[in-house]
Amino acid sequence: MHRGLFITFEGPEGAGKSTQARRLYERLQAAGYPVILTREPGGTRIGELIRRILIDLRHTEMAPTTEILLFSAARAQLVSELIRPYLATGGIVVCDRYADSTFAYQGYGLGRDLEELRVITEVATGGLKPDLTFYLQIDVEIGLQRKQHARERSERGGQPAEWNRLDARDLAYHRRVMHGFVELMKQEPERWHALDADQPVDELAEQIWHAVMPLLDRITPLATR
Amino acid sequence: MHRGLFITFEGPEGAGKSTQARRLYERLQAAGYPVILTREPGGTRIGELIRRILIDLRHTEMAPTTEILLFSAARAQLVSELIRPYLATGGIVVCDRYADSTFAYQGYGLGRDLEELRVITEVATGGLKPDLTFYLQIDVEIGLQRKQHARERSERGGQPAEWNRLDARDLAYHRRVMHGFVELMKQEPERWHALDADQPVDELAEQIWHAVMPLLDRITPLATR
Repeated sequence: MHRGLFITFEGPEGAGKSTQARRLYERLQAAGYPVILTREPGGTRIGELIRRILIDLRHTEMAPTTEILLFSAARAQLVSELIRPYLATGGIVVCDRYADSTFAYQGYGLGRDLEELRVITEVATGGLKPDLTFYLQIDVEIGLQRKQHARERSERGGQPAEWNRLDARDLAYHRRVMHGFVELMKQEPERWHALDADQPVDELAEQIWHAVMPLLDRITPLATR
Repeated sequence: MHRGLFITFEGPEGAGKSTQARRLYERLQAAGYPVILTREPGGTRIGELIRRILIDLRHTEMAPTTEILLFSAARAQLVSELIRPYLATGGIVVCDRYADSTFAYQGYGLGRDLEELRVITEVATGGLKPDLTFYLQIDVEIGLQRKQHARERSERGGQPAEWNRLDARDLAYHRRVMHGFVELMKQEPERWHALDADQPVDELAEQIWHAVMPLLDRITPLATR
């Protein structure tokens, strides 16, 4: 395997994954570790073009299989162009969502065959799994409300906020997704670290940092290289 | 299976697939048959957006796996949105390239695992295969020269011509692709109909028409519906 450290963030919409991924990235950087922050779908030039197709609210005709293959294409590019090369240099990769989201959203959420998803994910990632995955737990309704409020503030001229084709699915769908994440955690409890996301940002960031610290002894800080 | 007729055109670059697909489509239409003409990658709104990413000459960093998954995503959308529904009404679908191209270009051409491609193609198409596939045979070098000449004429202000990321690969690659098509024909000789594409357009169109005619008795013309 690789010499680096691959950390992902998962969970329902509005749980604060992007914020916490950035906080962790900044703290690792400040501590002198070689680290990059990326996200799915996207993270590469080609991946961001794929992302635009995926989240476009007008694309209501998108077939579930198309959706799965597009997510997997963006993932394949990210793994091959960015994640694998960086891990190979002994660096840390922090990624906002990864393959677990495909199982939760398209598998459990849309009811697609899980074995089929496993085969496609194996092709897309070449079998690369995270060393540690944070699950930011939040009530589905609260999470969607958070995202919707951010959108409303954005429409009134505030910070830009994204409300996309996948967010717009119904509550029952988002509940199935959450159930999916719980099932995935049961299958690999050693990889997952679940945290209550309904608490102040700083406290959550502190808990994440304490879970990451024990893994850092395998990473050589930049200054001592 | 379906009540319609699914006809595809395959072969190396510059063999005249698009021209012959259009000729067949026009002749079927003139004869009163329900028929649509489409192409891969593309053929749908989402598919054409995927096509743009795939053929962009600047995308030299695209990983082979990304390429396969993007072709498959466009195919999944085309099958689900257009081909299956139209075949279900008893219509004829004429398609410029289909899944065989993935096996020839990414499998034999780029050396990707054929079994992996089979699984992804099964997911993308739900197992839908053409009833008849025309292989337009032409010397690889002549075909590429044809396309390149068309591009040069286009650059001097003539008809627009496409010269894309996949055309730009080297001659050895295009030879492996052609070998791939030959292997695919051996595996399913009853589905394929190979024709010499180095002959006048009208004669080739006539040979194609004669191969299609025997299959038309299962299709109800529009006027008699």
